Amino acid sequence: MLTGITSPPQPYLSNGNGRPRPDMALSAETSTLKRSVMRELLKLAARPDVISLAGGLPASDLLPQAELSECVEAVLRRDGARALQYSPMDEALRRWICESMRARGVACQPEQVHITNGAQQGLAILSRLFLDPGQPAVIEAVTFTGIQQVTAGRGAAVRTVPTDLSTGLDVAALEEAFRREPRPRLAVVIPDFHNPLGVSLTVEKRRRVAELAARYRVPVVEDDPYSALRFAGEPRPPVKAFDEAGAVLYVGSFSKMLAPALRLGWIVAPAALAAQITVLRESIDLESSTLIQRAVSLFVERGLMDGHLARFNAANRCRRDLLFDELDHYLGAAATWTQPEGGLFVWLTLAGDIDTWEMLDRAIAAGVAYVPGAAFAVDGGFRNTLRLNFSNVQPELIPVAVERLARVIGRAGK
Amino acid sequence: MLTGITSPPQPYLSNGNGRPRPDMALSAETSTLKRSVMRELLKLAARPDVISLAGGLPASDLLPQAELSECVEAVLRRDGARALQYSPMDEALRRWICESMRARGVACQPEQVHITNGAQQGLAILSRLFLDPGQPAVIEAVTFTGIQQVTAGRGAAVRTVPTDLSTGLDVAALEEAFRREPRPRLAVVIPDFHNPLGVSLTVEKRRRVAELAARYRVPVVEDDPYSALRFAGEPRPPVKAFDEAGAVLYVGSFSKMLAPALRLGWIVAPAALAAQITVLRESIDLESSTLIQRAVSLFVERGLMDGHLARFNAANRCRRDLLFDELDHYLGAAATWTQPEGGLFVWLTLAGDIDTWEMLDRAIAAGVAYVPGAAFAVDGGFRNTLRLNFSNVQPELIPVAVERLARVIGRAGK
Repeated sequence: MLTGITSPPQPYLSNGNGRPRPDMALSAETSTLKRSVMRELLKLAARPDVISLAGGLPASDLLPQAELSECVEAVLRRDGARALQYSPMDEALRRWICESMRARGVACQPEQVHITNGAQQGLAILSRLFLDPGQPAVIEAVTFTGIQQVTAGRGAAVRTVPTDLSTGLDVAALEEAFRREPRPRLAVVIPDFHNPLGVSLTVEKRRRVAELAARYRVPVVEDDPYSALRFAGEPRPPVKAFDEAGAVLYVGSFSKMLAPALRLGWIVAPAALAAQITVLRESIDLESSTLIQRAVSLFVERGLMDGHLARFNAANRCRRDLLFDELDHYLGAAATWTQPEGGLFVWLTLAGDIDTWEMLDRAIAAGVAYVPGAAFAVDGGFRNTLRLNFSNVQPELIPVAVERLARVIGRAGK
Repeated sequence: MLTGITSPPQPYLSNGNGRPRPDMALSAETSTLKRSVMRELLKLAARPDVISLAGGLPASDLLPQAELSECVEAVLRRDGARALQYSPMDEALRRWICESMRARGVACQPEQVHITNGAQQGLAILSRLFLDPGQPAVIEAVTFTGIQQVTAGRGAAVRTVPTDLSTGLDVAALEEAFRREPRPRLAVVIPDFHNPLGVSLTVEKRRRVAELAARYRVPVVEDDPYSALRFAGEPRPPVKAFDEAGAVLYVGSFSKMLAPALRLGWIVAPAALAAQITVLRESIDLESSTLIQRAVSLFVERGLMDGHLARFNAANRCRRDLLFDELDHYLGAAATWTQPEGGLFVWLTLAGDIDTWEMLDRAIAAGVAYVPGAAFAVDGGFRNTLRLNFSNVQPELIPVAVERLARVIGRAGK
């Protein structure tokens, strides 16, 4: 082993975390919440000789840095110190978010939009709004670690639902989980370009999820940082578009569609919950940066978003296609993979008895990094899977990376 | 009554919050956490005919907007897309924080510094690190509402300690509260330029607080957003400077010394807690903006902080002096007030049986706004007190504001 990080994490549900307690007692939450291996893994993958397909970043070479810099400057010139003070949420930004939600079929008013620090803060706020430690929550069996942190990590009794690799989560299993007593207090799903699976929920299943949320009165959080990153196929309405009962809470983000360092996202929730969301948010960190809100608002007002996304998605599509070609060439018989029509990730399942955690050391030694699928597996398992990122890698490096990966898999398969 | 907001809030400890529950169940925390009246009060105070002494903002006319704009631009020119991506905490900024803490007598290494979104996020993280709902926490009987939110608001069994208006919190009462079983899991104090009281803890009391934290193994959070705003008297070392046991957790902020919209602050904690703080932080919103961290880092690297603070504090001192002159002139017999040597606030206690909540409607009608002291009173009481802000008001308006206030008090006193 190169480092401790390449040993698999304990899955949340088999948890006996056993962290030694210092002299001062820590909260129950602190002992439940697990270190995310991702950050340390990414450090490892940052070695200059390693081609990293491990990250979850948008393409660095396509971030609109000049335009954003101009927007910041223009806002300070226009608003002076008002852009640097505490301030209510930016109304122009809330309106733009609302319009973009309406264009996707969501009936929505600006007062339903709460600006957050990225999608993770939206998840954290909604978890604290609905869920107490010990209560049941429903999440996908393979899902983004940040979703595990706001459910299992807060001590929820987690029920998991499997996800089909072409049609998205198993809606019948979701209904089973909703039906069991005690009734879940929260569910979290990723309908578009799932992290880590890359799969999108079918439209019919989206409708069903909204119906189940309404029927069983389980608040369903729709985590959607990726839908603007569609580069193929037809756009699908969010689950929230089918929500007539106000039982679906939508979480969006500018991190992947514009830039992570903006730390900007949003919640769309029933107006009746706005006051509670505001007070929870205030207790966490008061508000999001006025300056950044106004700069992003100016960016969209100047009409820069569509062109930016067109360039972004064209590049992502080209990289995914290249990756698929190389996977076909080098791994055709040794693996299967999902068919993302957008987003950042593809999910590989390796043939045979291969443990991708064990294999990671050798992969890094061979100059390629990925995230072992087990890192996302709530109840464990999925040892023969891995996540690849195609957005933040130079196209000319993709063949080299896959060739290295194939070599390591070939040896591991023997 | 002009609006519902001018009725007094329920103090936390007499809480029966009685919010009607929607069809979907909300968490216990959501029912405990109270709306802060401050935000709505500030809206009211924003009427153009009202001179507001209600806010908690640094002087708008002295924020270094041009310099900050240049720093943002320079960082994007220098670092390109790297300044817009996810990133580990900015090391240069951590080092600068560490050096400025060392200059104040705190033995400190960069790895003990965790960058947050302002001081409120520091408070929220440390509360979640040490405190579970139902467990005892110790706070001052009159204190910043954000401190109430991360203790009482999270369901803690709160014990309050009185604060002397010239020497700061009652250390004997603090020891009493620490000694009682079950042992408190957390205490939060504001040693410098207390919000709302304006008082600073004596050096001897600071030493005692650190000793008590160590002796009783109660983690003491030192909330310090204001110490850089000293304009009179001698600087005092933070409580953390006397902390040999690693029992004091320091929370700092750039919001009041530089600009609120940066949403930037920091925690200084024992290195042994760094991993837990990081994982808690990740679960809340991953990290603070790389762009903003680097811009502030460049601001201090360019040596702009000292000059900025000198201008800031000179203006604040002038405004406080003006306010004191006018208070002497108009309210000499009708009130007493604290003697802040820095920060943003002064605390008035009115003579006679005057309720400042009831008086607020008439004050706003007369064109002056303040915050009723009861808004900060954890167990209720303090009905004849109020908080005035002197930093964010134009000097020429101070006499007008105090004259209006005196008129309203005169009538209320009859």
